[in-house]
Amino acid sequence: MLQRPARLSRGTRSDSAVIANDTFLRALKREPTPYTPIWLMRQAGRYLPEYAATRARAGSFMGLATHPGLATEVTLQPLERYPLDAAILFSDILTVPDAMGLGLSFAEGEGPRFARTAADEGAIAALEVPDMAKLRYVFDAVREIKRALAGRVPLIGFSGSPFTLACYMIEGRGSADFAAVRRMAHARPELLARLVDVNARAVTAYLDEQIAAGVDAVMIFDTWGGLLGADAYRRFSLAPMRAVLRGLTPGRDGAPVPSIVFTKGGGALLDDIAACGAHGVGLDWTVDIAAARARVGGKVALQGNLDPLVLTTDAATVAREATAIVRAAGPAPGHIFNLGHGIVPGTPPDNVAALVETVHAESRKLRSATAVA
Amino acid sequence: MLQRPARLSRGTRSDSAVIANDTFLRALKREPTPYTPIWLMRQAGRYLPEYAATRARAGSFMGLATHPGLATEVTLQPLERYPLDAAILFSDILTVPDAMGLGLSFAEGEGPRFARTAADEGAIAALEVPDMAKLRYVFDAVREIKRALAGRVPLIGFSGSPFTLACYMIEGRGSADFAAVRRMAHARPELLARLVDVNARAVTAYLDEQIAAGVDAVMIFDTWGGLLGADAYRRFSLAPMRAVLRGLTPGRDGAPVPSIVFTKGGGALLDDIAACGAHGVGLDWTVDIAAARARVGGKVALQGNLDPLVLTTDAATVAREATAIVRAAGPAPGHIFNLGHGIVPGTPPDNVAALVETVHAESRKLRSATAVA
Repeated sequence: MLQRPARLSRGTRSDSAVIANDTFLRALKREPTPYTPIWLMRQAGRYLPEYAATRARAGSFMGLATHPGLATEVTLQPLERYPLDAAILFSDILTVPDAMGLGLSFAEGEGPRFARTAADEGAIAALEVPDMAKLRYVFDAVREIKRALAGRVPLIGFSGSPFTLACYMIEGRGSADFAAVRRMAHARPELLARLVDVNARAVTAYLDEQIAAGVDAVMIFDTWGGLLGADAYRRFSLAPMRAVLRGLTPGRDGAPVPSIVFTKGGGALLDDIAACGAHGVGLDWTVDIAAARARVGGKVALQGNLDPLVLTTDAATVAREATAIVRAAGPAPGHIFNLGHGIVPGTPPDNVAALVETVHAESRKLRSATAVA
Repeated sequence: MLQRPARLSRGTRSDSAVIANDTFLRALKREPTPYTPIWLMRQAGRYLPEYAATRARAGSFMGLATHPGLATEVTLQPLERYPLDAAILFSDILTVPDAMGLGLSFAEGEGPRFARTAADEGAIAALEVPDMAKLRYVFDAVREIKRALAGRVPLIGFSGSPFTLACYMIEGRGSADFAAVRRMAHARPELLARLVDVNARAVTAYLDEQIAAGVDAVMIFDTWGGLLGADAYRRFSLAPMRAVLRGLTPGRDGAPVPSIVFTKGGGALLDDIAACGAHGVGLDWTVDIAAARARVGGKVALQGNLDPLVLTTDAATVAREATAIVRAAGPAPGHIFNLGHGIVPGTPPDNVAALVETVHAESRKLRSATAVA
C-alpha cells in the first residue's frame, strides 16, 4: 500500500552502540536498566529563559524550527541543565502539511495556522507526498544535533500522526472540538480515509529520512485521536499509525527502529494501541499507570505520565507526585518517565530539576528494594 | 458524614405507577423493554426555534431557568416534536453554587460566569450548604413540569457533580484545561477535598428536594472529572458522587431513586464508575459501547453514546450511525440511547426526528430478530 520514495540521504546514521547513556533505548525495548530514564515532552521550550533568548534571535517560531543551527541550540539547552536521558528534535508536529503546500505559521500567543485547508474533495485529491527536499532543514538539524550530542544520549525524531495532521489540515488551525473533522468522519468517511492515507505515506517518508539522518528512535504524536469514537479511532488514527510503523525502513541491525505512539485521551483503547507495532506507548496523565502496566506492560514499554500542571506547583509536590508514579509503574523493565502532556509555559525550571532528580533516585531505590526483597 | 437538612416539601411526589411510557425507567433498572428508549442531553435547547422564541421572551438564560412557567414550556417543547421516552428538567448544572452566593450569569455566546470564586482557604471555608428555599424555582418547575407531563413519560432531575461544580467555583468560568483546579488537586488536596465535600452535601439536599417535588430519576453530570488523573478522579469526583447517591432519601417504595452518573472522558475508568452505586452510567461518544456492555452491562444500565456531531450531518448518516450503536449495544436489557454529549446548536431538528425514529425501529427489529434466532 505504501509507496516508498527514494531516500534523500543514506549511510549517515550513527551507530547506536556509541551512545554513552542508552537507558532510554533499553527501557523502550523493555530491557533492565539501573533506573527509570526520563525525558519530557516540550523539554526544549518557553519555560526556559535561554530558549526565549534563542527564539527572539530567530524572529519567529518557524524561523527557529527551519534553522538547523538554532534548532540544535534549543534541542541541547535542557540537556545542559538537567541529566535527561534523551534529547528530542526541536521541530513542530505540522511540518509535513507545510511541505505539502498548506503554509504553516504561528501567530504570537496562539497556536498553528495554515494559510490553506484541505477540507473538501478537490483539495484532498490534490495532496501528494511532498518532496522530502522541502524538509531538508529538519534532516540537517538531526545531523547537526547528533554531532553536538556526540553520543551522550539518544535523539528522538517525531511527527504528528496522520490523523492529527488531518485535523489541522481540515480546520486550518486548532479547535476545541474539531467539529468539521468529526463531521467528515461520519458523513464522508472515504474522504477522511483518503486524507489520512496520503498523510501516512508522507509521514513514513518523513520519519525514514529522520532515521537516515541519525535519530535513534521515533515518536508519533497523536494529539487528537482521542476525540474520535472507538471505531473511527481504529480506522482513521490507529490503522494509519500502524501503516507508518510497518512502512519504516529497518535499522542497520535489520530490526525495526524503536518507536513510540502517543494518543492523548487514548486510555480506554490501550489494548488496541499496544498492538499497533510500536515498542512503546505514551500515556496521558489521566491514565492509571499501574493498571496500564498490568494490562499491557508485558507487550510494550509505557511512557508517562505526570500531569504537567504538577510542575507548576512546588518542589515538595513535584517530588511526592513523581515518586507516586515511579512506584505505581513498578520496578519491572519498560517504564520511561515523562509528563502526560507537554511542559506548560510558566513552569519554574527548578521544579524540572527536582523532577529529574526524584525520578532517578526513587527508581534506583525501588530497584534495589526489589532486588533485596 | 452527610448532614441531611429538613426537606422543603414532602408528599408531593407523584406515583411512578401512573407513567404511561416507563420504558426509560425499566431500561435503567435493566428490565426488558420492547425497544430501546431514547432521550437526548440538551434536548430542550438552542437548535429548536420554539426554544429560541421562549428564551427571547425570558430576556436571559437565568431568567428562563428561574421562571417555572417558562422552564416548563421549554422542557415540554422537544416532547411535542419527537416521541422521546423521557423529559429532563430544564435548568443548569451550576444552580447550587449560585445559591451558595457565587452569582451565576451567562454572557451571550459564552459559557457560565461566577461573580465570585471559591479558590482559596478563606472562600472555601466560608461555603455552606445553601438554604434550599433559594432553589425553590427549580422545585416549583419540577412540580409544574410533572403536572404538564401528566404521566406521559418520566421526568429526570439533575445536578452538576460535586467536582464539576468545584471546577467552575475555582476558575469562575469554563476553561480549556482547568489548570487551577488540577494544581489544587496536586498541591492542596485537603482544600479541594473540603470543597467537594460541601458540594456533595449541597447536591444531596438539592437532588432530594427534586425527588420530593416529583422527579422520577436523577442524573449527575460530571463534565470535567475526566480531566483528573485516575487516583484524583476516584478521590475528588467519584467518591463524592458515591456519597451523594448513598445520601439520597429512598423513594416511596423504599428503593433508591433511579440514578445515572455521567463522567465525560471517563471511559478508561468504567469499572470504577460502574461500582459507584448508580443504576446507569452515561458514556461519551469516544467509548466503545459493545466493549462497555461486555464489561459492565451485567451491573449497570448504559446510556449513550452517539457523537452529537452526527446530528449536524444528514438523515442517512444519522440513521446509519444510530443503527450501528443500537446493534453494538445489543438486545440485552439495560441500554438507554442518548448522545455522547449535549446536542450542539445548529443541529437540524429533522435530523433529531430521524434519530428517534431509527432508534425505536431498529431496536424493535433487533429484539424480534434475537427472539426468533
